[in-house]
Amino acid sequence: MAEHSPLLTELIDALKLLPGVGQKSAQRMAMHLLKVEHEKSIKLGETICKAVQNIKHCGQCRNYTELQICEICSSPNRKTTQMCIVETPTDLMAIENGTSYNGIYFVLMGKLSPLDGVGPEQLGLDKLEARLQSGNLEEIILATSSTMEGEVTAHVIAEMVKQNGLKTTRLAQGMPIGGELEYLDLNTLSQAFDTRTEYN
Amino acid sequence: MAEHSPLLTELIDALKLLPGVGQKSAQRMAMHLLKVEHEKSIKLGETICKAVQNIKHCGQCRNYTELQICEICSSPNRKTTQMCIVETPTDLMAIENGTSYNGIYFVLMGKLSPLDGVGPEQLGLDKLEARLQSGNLEEIILATSSTMEGEVTAHVIAEMVKQNGLKTTRLAQGMPIGGELEYLDLNTLSQAFDTRTEYN
Repeated sequence: MAEHSPLLTELIDALKLLPGVGQKSAQRMAMHLLKVEHEKSIKLGETICKAVQNIKHCGQCRNYTELQICEICSSPNRKTTQMCIVETPTDLMAIENGTSYNGIYFVLMGKLSPLDGVGPEQLGLDKLEARLQSGNLEEIILATSSTMEGEVTAHVIAEMVKQNGLKTTRLAQGMPIGGELEYLDLNTLSQAFDTRTEYN
Repeated sequence: MAEHSPLLTELIDALKLLPGVGQKSAQRMAMHLLKVEHEKSIKLGETICKAVQNIKHCGQCRNYTELQICEICSSPNRKTTQMCIVETPTDLMAIENGTSYNGIYFVLMGKLSPLDGVGPEQLGLDKLEARLQSGNLEEIILATSSTMEGEVTAHVIAEMVKQNGLKTTRLAQGMPIGGELEYLDLNTLSQAFDTRTEYN
């Protein structure tokens, strides 16, 4: 039954590397790539190769960059007294796009998860420790996710920060803006109720 | 706010070429490509380029292939008396995978849609006409989709086939296997009711 073009089969198989892409989506993507202007598809292929070969981790904050030190770390316009600690470059992008935060970052590239072999070393905590000691830092913002593993990671880092005598903050927890009480999970509801703030 | 790696931005933008991929999915895909083994990502990039540069249309059936004449058309094991007419290579794959059909194909690469500038020429109907006249064909199976445009396309081709004195068949219409009556659209229900067959 499989007298297809081997190259087309190869393309479909290769596309399955993408997250959330199975056989059907990969087929649809392959057909699309063959249908659109060839320059665009070739540009995509070449950009993937170029990006993977050139993008490394920033020497200071571990964010993705093609430079030795990333644009944020080397910018003269950023406050170097505040450091926000995030799990992934995507989280960093979300904070850049959604807030007016203008300090620097440290990207863990994961969260503590001993069962998956992710320990302090994989998260670059030694590098973070060095930065905590050396810099002119004043506040460390813990922006790890609100999952069990994210909380553990935040706790471990908070301990490190405490030993260096710096201020630590954590993103506020509570109801999402626009969320309906009825659909809120019970943990969040209970937490938000207990930490209610004065209304003004 | 946009002090990101330009190459990463370029990768995200390029990934949006894929169908159904917006900013968020493209970000997730980019992060994934940078995270997995680099050889795999580079293989994907290179395969896209290689496939787009080498896959052309088969000289006989217009299916995608890297050869002059595709594997199906050149196979000695296929019946050349039956020709199945489909809209896309994906439809062809579906028939190959889902049925025991062992004849040859003609791939329209679209369906008649004058408003979108798709006329008989774009569907290669001149080439089809030549094949109808030349070959040892006996049956033409119209497997265009069951939409308005698919039906019009089937009708036009059926007229061509009739002039060549060949037998034309169309895929059966009715309830999908496993479908519940309650959720069937009314057109299909009415059609299936009118064309009911003897139960045995």
